[in-house]
Amino acid sequence: MRATFMYGAGDVRVENVPDSVVKLPTDALVRVTASCICGSDLWPYGSLSPADGPARMGHEFIGVVEDTGSQVTTVKRGDLVVAPFAISDNTCAFCREGLHTSCAHPQAGFWDGEPEEGGQAEAVRVPLADGTLVKLPVAPDSALIPSLLTLSDVFGTGYHAAVAAGVNERTRVTVIGDGAVGLLAVLSARRLGAEQIILMGRHPARTGLGREFGATDVVSARGEEGIAQVRELTGGHGTHAVLEAVGTMSAYEQALGIVRPGGVISRVGVPQYEEAPIGFGSLFRHNLRLAGGPAPVRAYIEELMPDILDGTLEPGKVFDATTDLDGVPAGYQDMADRKSLKVLIQP
Amino acid sequence: MRATFMYGAGDVRVENVPDSVVKLPTDALVRVTASCICGSDLWPYGSLSPADGPARMGHEFIGVVEDTGSQVTTVKRGDLVVAPFAISDNTCAFCREGLHTSCAHPQAGFWDGEPEEGGQAEAVRVPLADGTLVKLPVAPDSALIPSLLTLSDVFGTGYHAAVAAGVNERTRVTVIGDGAVGLLAVLSARRLGAEQIILMGRHPARTGLGREFGATDVVSARGEEGIAQVRELTGGHGTHAVLEAVGTMSAYEQALGIVRPGGVISRVGVPQYEEAPIGFGSLFRHNLRLAGGPAPVRAYIEELMPDILDGTLEPGKVFDATTDLDGVPAGYQDMADRKSLKVLIQP
Repeated sequence: MRATFMYGAGDVRVENVPDSVVKLPTDALVRVTASCICGSDLWPYGSLSPADGPARMGHEFIGVVEDTGSQVTTVKRGDLVVAPFAISDNTCAFCREGLHTSCAHPQAGFWDGEPEEGGQAEAVRVPLADGTLVKLPVAPDSALIPSLLTLSDVFGTGYHAAVAAGVNERTRVTVIGDGAVGLLAVLSARRLGAEQIILMGRHPARTGLGREFGATDVVSARGEEGIAQVRELTGGHGTHAVLEAVGTMSAYEQALGIVRPGGVISRVGVPQYEEAPIGFGSLFRHNLRLAGGPAPVRAYIEELMPDILDGTLEPGKVFDATTDLDGVPAGYQDMADRKSLKVLIQP
Repeated sequence: MRATFMYGAGDVRVENVPDSVVKLPTDALVRVTASCICGSDLWPYGSLSPADGPARMGHEFIGVVEDTGSQVTTVKRGDLVVAPFAISDNTCAFCREGLHTSCAHPQAGFWDGEPEEGGQAEAVRVPLADGTLVKLPVAPDSALIPSLLTLSDVFGTGYHAAVAAGVNERTRVTVIGDGAVGLLAVLSARRLGAEQIILMGRHPARTGLGREFGATDVVSARGEEGIAQVRELTGGHGTHAVLEAVGTMSAYEQALGIVRPGGVISRVGVPQYEEAPIGFGSLFRHNLRLAGGPAPVRAYIEELMPDILDGTLEPGKVFDATTDLDGVPAGYQDMADRKSLKVLIQP
């Protein structure tokens, strides 16, 4: 079978590998029918040292169950399933609290903990299949597949940003970042009833989709000028919630500038810094809160799927390009160049 | 009249100053009957440069209203009142949300914004008297005065730590620090129903009072050993809430080590660092949250006072020494030496 590897920054290759097979009684083998490239894949695409490669790529996919281990009971051969970007047992104390990304099972974790598997491939061995996979009630060629695929990561991640920030009908929200996560954070804030949603982004096609998803205002300026414009839109005080969907220190500093006293900065994605200001001169003085983390998307699938199935929400609009496996390396480059917002892969 | 000044580290003096008087129509003049030294006063006591002094000291007091400006309506001459450590109008959007420490009124702020006033004195001009002062239904010599005085800062601050952490009946809590704020954070967590309250502190008399206030466990070890002991007490996972009542980087790092995935570190007092780890390797990976700030104690006075008046709670037990104004300099030194937990002043 064929699978995607990253050998180093800017160096993605699709190669032949041994077929994935069921190894443990809790595994399922899934033949991938739809996958995609994640914004988080762009961090190593910009910086991976060849000494740290090659890395098997892909952590978002939909596919058909082809085989199951003897203990798997919730999915069976022929089922169409979606896989979250984190493997979990869905039964431990953390999963029961909806924090599947902190699942206590020894086999739980992110896909990079499975160096011989990845979603940007023809097939994947899925550990803890009962906990991880969720059956989809549509056919593999349904027009809903792009939207359902977003349940594996990008929609759940945007939704987590809004949930972790406690967004509700009384909340003014700023979303920093017009990438796919940022746009779906807008859609999520709208779904949760936010009264004002300011999208900070400068790519017109993307901010246009952001308005379609529910942004009430768009601010294209960054830094001090962007902060001033958000404050002007909010009576001088900033917004209760800032959903930070970029991951850089400058985005964090921008968040500090526009969050309202008593408000919350909610971070998703993969922050590219470890230390940051949180003392009296930044977070502390006005009781600003910090929330967020890797999204427990498994916890949101049942909640969000009905809105996709009945057509209420179309998060799949973030996909603006489709390719087969051969086109994956070019897809990475197009996303890095911001020519493509998010690339869907049909292996 | 006499008032307390800090001239530099270790140098506190009580001096004669011009009598405080009402200046603005919204002011009240309060004759102080009970005041105290705050743990936060010990930070400058350890580090104040003489070039930055002298500073008028004291931000917690009870007293009798002696005069009022023409616009003051909620208190009158002869009333016994308590003053929170922040001046606020109690009517702006932030005050209505219970965030009095971010009051939008131009005269609002901390007492260090009033360089000619301070609570460790015979009298204080109180700005925004209607918003700031709260009438007490007892006499100045009531046995309840020490407990009622804690409403001006230390009890409200401990309570804020627990409230900001969302402590409830299903919460396991660790309190870091056996100072007066830490001990009253224990009392607050108990009041909010926490099922387990681990107090980290090594001063036997203080941890004894912590047990009386509701601590279910005491851990005297610090650092890695302390973290290991808390984990042992909590099935390996740490506690949902960590109330950080010390303010040092080592206390923050200790908090990171004992907070449960998905849990919250709630900080009160005055953090002595600005930058700290909050990235994937610390807060982010397990969706840890950060909360807290200067406590809006004004918001909690009406809620907490009944429990003091009916004898349910005795937060005044944190006072283990009493002095007149002459004894204030020695009181600072005793608190710095950890000989006294908290010193009450009867001017």
